[in-house]
Amino acid sequence: MKILNLVYFSRMIRIVLLGAGNVATHLAETFLASGALEILQIYNRTEYSLLPFHGKIKTTTSLAELADADCYIISIADDGIAAVSDALPFSDKLVVHTSGSVAMEELNPKNRRGVFYPLQTFSRNHKVDFSEVPICIEAESKKDALLLEEISNSIAGKSYFINSEQRQKLHLAAVFVCNFVNHLYHIGYEITKENNIPFTILKPLIKETARKIEDAIPSEVQTGPAKRNDKKIIAKQLESLHLQEHKEIYDLLTNAITDYYGRKKL
Amino acid sequence: MKILNLVYFSRMIRIVLLGAGNVATHLAETFLASGALEILQIYNRTEYSLLPFHGKIKTTTSLAELADADCYIISIADDGIAAVSDALPFSDKLVVHTSGSVAMEELNPKNRRGVFYPLQTFSRNHKVDFSEVPICIEAESKKDALLLEEISNSIAGKSYFINSEQRQKLHLAAVFVCNFVNHLYHIGYEITKENNIPFTILKPLIKETARKIEDAIPSEVQTGPAKRNDKKIIAKQLESLHLQEHKEIYDLLTNAITDYYGRKKL
Repeated sequence: MKILNLVYFSRMIRIVLLGAGNVATHLAETFLASGALEILQIYNRTEYSLLPFHGKIKTTTSLAELADADCYIISIADDGIAAVSDALPFSDKLVVHTSGSVAMEELNPKNRRGVFYPLQTFSRNHKVDFSEVPICIEAESKKDALLLEEISNSIAGKSYFINSEQRQKLHLAAVFVCNFVNHLYHIGYEITKENNIPFTILKPLIKETARKIEDAIPSEVQTGPAKRNDKKIIAKQLESLHLQEHKEIYDLLTNAITDYYGRKKL
Repeated sequence: MKILNLVYFSRMIRIVLLGAGNVATHLAETFLASGALEILQIYNRTEYSLLPFHGKIKTTTSLAELADADCYIISIADDGIAAVSDALPFSDKLVVHTSGSVAMEELNPKNRRGVFYPLQTFSRNHKVDFSEVPICIEAESKKDALLLEEISNSIAGKSYFINSEQRQKLHLAAVFVCNFVNHLYHIGYEITKENNIPFTILKPLIKETARKIEDAIPSEVQTGPAKRNDKKIIAKQLESLHLQEHKEIYDLLTNAITDYYGRKKL
């Protein structure tokens, strides 16, 4: 899965970034910090979002003014990617997007297409350590894939060759292990808050639950009333929830766990 | 919530442990390692589970042979706790259990009752760092609460005064943020495995999702298609799941998230 690390470019790779959102901003910062990449420009439709980059990177709001680069990275909302790639006023350049769920083929084929998807959750105000970010790479040619790997190496990312179908499945898995998990943290927060318990008391447990799967398959470390099929506790806990939505989530996940581990025993 | 740390006992606190399961074993090991506590005995109904303790701690299978101790810690399955506390052949001693979901009052009142609940997920083969374990303490008198805090301090645990009702809510919250979360990790594992993607690629995301709530309220850092109410991606992802159970979990959690953040905007 890991592709060979070859020194492919003898000069700095020149990048144009399109977009000024959360992911684009983190990429711009890490590209700048790397010292190994040259960000020629950052493009955004509106000037306002480009203000934070003034003095650091050249900015433009016009696609017609885009500089000549080795790689154009479109990092905008999913449903705008195809249109921006259509509107690019050049051809046969390497144009990639950073989305988990958009197929490479949705980019306009007048350019050489690729994907540079950092699989991580980005917070506005928290610096991302890219050595902890898997970069999912896809390209139409080996040469372009190697260039994308060079970019990934420059920011110490771990590169993986992942095709569009796999990437969409990865993004789906990420929704479960990140977005849905965070909503369960939120429910934990609400339960503690309602009962005058500091949420902080749950944090070591949250940390350890995530740590456990560093060196184990999740199903090997499953614990709790549902795993034990402890009907008495399950009924008591279900009754003690007062929000219908929380009851439904409790019920569905409990059944999923008892079913799974019940089947395993058969 | 944190109670005063007083040096209360001038000699080593003498403990008898009842039970030889996962939690009892971790407690025994950390008590032994502390050097500040004296484990007089470990009791279990059957000899077999006591074998790992031979040569380290005195063992017994007979309640009639229990030694005179400062604190008796019952660490067995929830539905056995009341019966063991009934069967103890003495009175007016400090007897506590280690369960998240059993009320202190379920212990027989012939002894002084208490709770010593370590809020953590314990793995058989992974050493627990008790400095990362909140210890939820409850007792009928201040004197006994201080003795339990002494025990907690001896193993570097963080002590919290939590009553039985709060503890049951904490245990419920723990089911959401630990047991249910681990099942979502499991679903992520299944999706990657089915698509020949190494599960390890999701681990930095899992770690970062847990890290984020160290210094933020979960709802402040929610991301993803459901939060954005991105109907196109949601429909596509829902369709790409082939297990009915996964579809239901995806649907329910997505609706919970869109509802919550939709309401917030109103």
